[in-house]
Amino acid sequence: METFMEEAFVEARKAISVGEVPVGCVFIYQNEIIARGSNNVNATKNATRHAEFVCIDQTLEFCKKNNVEWENVFPKVSVVVTVEPCIMCASALYELGVKEIVFGCANDRFGGKTVVNVETFFEKKIKVIPGIRADEAMELLKKFYKGENPSAPVPKTKR
Amino acid sequence: METFMEEAFVEARKAISVGEVPVGCVFIYQNEIIARGSNNVNATKNATRHAEFVCIDQTLEFCKKNNVEWENVFPKVSVVVTVEPCIMCASALYELGVKEIVFGCANDRFGGKTVVNVETFFEKKIKVIPGIRADEAMELLKKFYKGENPSAPVPKTKR
Repeated sequence: METFMEEAFVEARKAISVGEVPVGCVFIYQNEIIARGSNNVNATKNATRHAEFVCIDQTLEFCKKNNVEWENVFPKVSVVVTVEPCIMCASALYELGVKEIVFGCANDRFGGKTVVNVETFFEKKIKVIPGIRADEAMELLKKFYKGENPSAPVPKTKR
Repeated sequence: METFMEEAFVEARKAISVGEVPVGCVFIYQNEIIARGSNNVNATKNATRHAEFVCIDQTLEFCKKNNVEWENVFPKVSVVVTVEPCIMCASALYELGVKEIVFGCANDRFGGKTVVNVETFFEKKIKVIPGIRADEAMELLKKFYKGENPSAPVPKTKR
């Protein structure tokens, strides 16, 4: 899983280099990366284009191309993401029924496990493995919000 | 708002006629419908294509076509939907910062207000008007889950 997390970090670093919030994600199926992406909110002007949604759409494309049913693919998909999925993304991942979610640092404001455990509302249980290279993931976020990147937005502070 | 809710119902009825969960939605901007849609999960084979996401994408298209910034449009958008948005959709609507959410019946399993009040995690406050034609909206759902429609899936029961 370490190799895959490194690939998620590659995506997160790409994101920060273009002024997007540095969250990177890869989806693993049959031991191969079938989707990779990062936050794409600014480029697409769509606030819902989080890394996970980018990867969900790529996975659906993968299913179409390979003529396999998504219902048979998602239950075998490992989601590897540098930051804990937010409530929106976590709900989507439960809805789709992925196999497991491996993440770096927690998302203390919007985390789909830390802030609200969305699992409670779904019949599926998903294995969640937190804390893989959490410090590095957090460092990237801090770097972004500290405004070292000129395109960085004003950070939202917790009330 | 009654006229717009009727249009949301038109969408919900279309959905049930093609075997989708009957939830219909319209987005109102400057007193006009700029997006309309219903659950589109089966047709697209994408479990995240809820009515609200269909409308979000249409609104972004509207912004592109009319050369207006989405940041200036969403804060003036009224979301009118037959069923309370789920946690995923409600999070997306808060993320985008819509003006208000008007809905029919509550969503007792996944509701983004009833089950988890996602507003708690966002700095934006959104006016929420529940209970408009709630009984009719619920009747449509019941009709669907009772399997009067041959394409209806097996209903998920609450544990």
